[in-house]
Amino acid sequence: MDARTRLCAVIGKPIGHSLSPQIHNAAFAELGLNYSYVAFEVDDVPGAMEGVRALGIAGLSVTIPHKVATMVEMDEVDPVAQDIGCVNTVVNSEGRLIGYNTDGLGALHALLAAGCDLDGRSVLILGSGGAARAIAITLAHKCLLEKMTILGILEEERTILAQQAQSQTCYVVEHADLAESVLQEILPQHDVLIQCTPVGMYPKTEATLVPESLLRPDLWVFDVVYNPLETMLLRQAKALGCHVVAGAEMFVRQAAAQFELWTGETAPINVMFDVVLEALQRR
Amino acid sequence: MDARTRLCAVIGKPIGHSLSPQIHNAAFAELGLNYSYVAFEVDDVPGAMEGVRALGIAGLSVTIPHKVATMVEMDEVDPVAQDIGCVNTVVNSEGRLIGYNTDGLGALHALLAAGCDLDGRSVLILGSGGAARAIAITLAHKCLLEKMTILGILEEERTILAQQAQSQTCYVVEHADLAESVLQEILPQHDVLIQCTPVGMYPKTEATLVPESLLRPDLWVFDVVYNPLETMLLRQAKALGCHVVAGAEMFVRQAAAQFELWTGETAPINVMFDVVLEALQRR
Repeated sequence: MDARTRLCAVIGKPIGHSLSPQIHNAAFAELGLNYSYVAFEVDDVPGAMEGVRALGIAGLSVTIPHKVATMVEMDEVDPVAQDIGCVNTVVNSEGRLIGYNTDGLGALHALLAAGCDLDGRSVLILGSGGAARAIAITLAHKCLLEKMTILGILEEERTILAQQAQSQTCYVVEHADLAESVLQEILPQHDVLIQCTPVGMYPKTEATLVPESLLRPDLWVFDVVYNPLETMLLRQAKALGCHVVAGAEMFVRQAAAQFELWTGETAPINVMFDVVLEALQRR
Repeated sequence: MDARTRLCAVIGKPIGHSLSPQIHNAAFAELGLNYSYVAFEVDDVPGAMEGVRALGIAGLSVTIPHKVATMVEMDEVDPVAQDIGCVNTVVNSEGRLIGYNTDGLGALHALLAAGCDLDGRSVLILGSGGAARAIAITLAHKCLLEKMTILGILEEERTILAQQAQSQTCYVVEHADLAESVLQEILPQHDVLIQCTPVGMYPKTEATLVPESLLRPDLWVFDVVYNPLETMLLRQAKALGCHVVAGAEMFVRQAAAQFELWTGETAPINVMFDVVLEALQRR
């Protein structure tokens, strides 16, 4: 590190357990880039953005609870992030702050990397919260699906999300209650299941929304939960021969997309993945 | 580096050649402190200070041209820095920014470390610019000299400085023109010579303000110029058996004082000095 080292950082609160500094610093080191990455615990988001401009901080990751407050401070917001309604990434382009959301992109890249080309596929999304929102809107912008269905327990939230996704697409976006009877009826009509609720997350690791009997070998099963690294849903799906994609893949690939926005370099995915695996296995 | 790493930084413009990141990062590493240090090129000082507060940056070094503009943004200013009229150090104390000036302290510590106890000594300062100002005011606050004399070519600047130093002391502070005839008359009446002008600095390394014939073995000679590491003045003084103190000592010790203000830990002076020597010898 010297006087030419460029700084990136994550802002959030609390932030003391973020893995982002280790992930990004390992990636900078791997490529020999003169960047460094720290974590800032922030209350005052407008002040933080003024600081990013005045100090020339190259880029930010943004996490809970600042993803919405940060978006309104941007000079420009990427259309996908605008539709999602929040940013997880800030790029400082010579003093102009540009907001992006790479969460949905992380999911998309995780599926593509696993060999799941989404074009022409029917996708079932479980949940309508932040992760579901980022993924549904990103897929609506970036992919030509056959159809998308969103199941959620909050009728207003899932309705709005489905309408917004629909407005970006020419295929049908449907929504319904997230109930087992609905799942039983419609899961067979879908090729890809994306589990976006917290069900199955530590410490309730034995929970799953999807009855084992509904899983079939030609189904793609992607669970955004990454703690544990293999959820009950993924374990059962893998045992039944389904194609599975783990949440850690999305977590790494949303970070990789940030890295590429800041540096313009291809992110060293494997190095970043190793940091995440090591840290999560230690927990 | 992880999510608990605290950040310090230097602000200035230009800043790309600052040695401060290497010096402080080496010191943090030596003590195993979870701190990191970067350089920010800044135009907007109020915005930068708002950023320091909002991001929770632990401390700053401040260099040209921001030492005065930074002082007016502080919540509190140390009395010595207030009298000097600028700060080179900011401590973020739970969101309250406190300004200090460690430049004069660096000179004082350099003299003390060399064995030159200033109490009861008569001190001759050459110059009345920034370095002279920091040193004269700091000595006026911290030391009980026998007397202080300031020689400068700018009458108004040296008069104001002498008056300000006088106001903090019970001994006599005098000032006069910085001319060879004056030096010949009054240098013999002083124990310690502090050279605070740029004379002798690279590239005009053969220049010196002090005729060799005025140097005597019992004189302390301190030159704030640190590029070259040994100025013509110091080389001649050393050859004549004077006690000499090099500018690099002041440079390292003002940084060490900053380090101690930020971390509360005793700075590893030798490690910091090695970084400076290595970098300056390479230039």
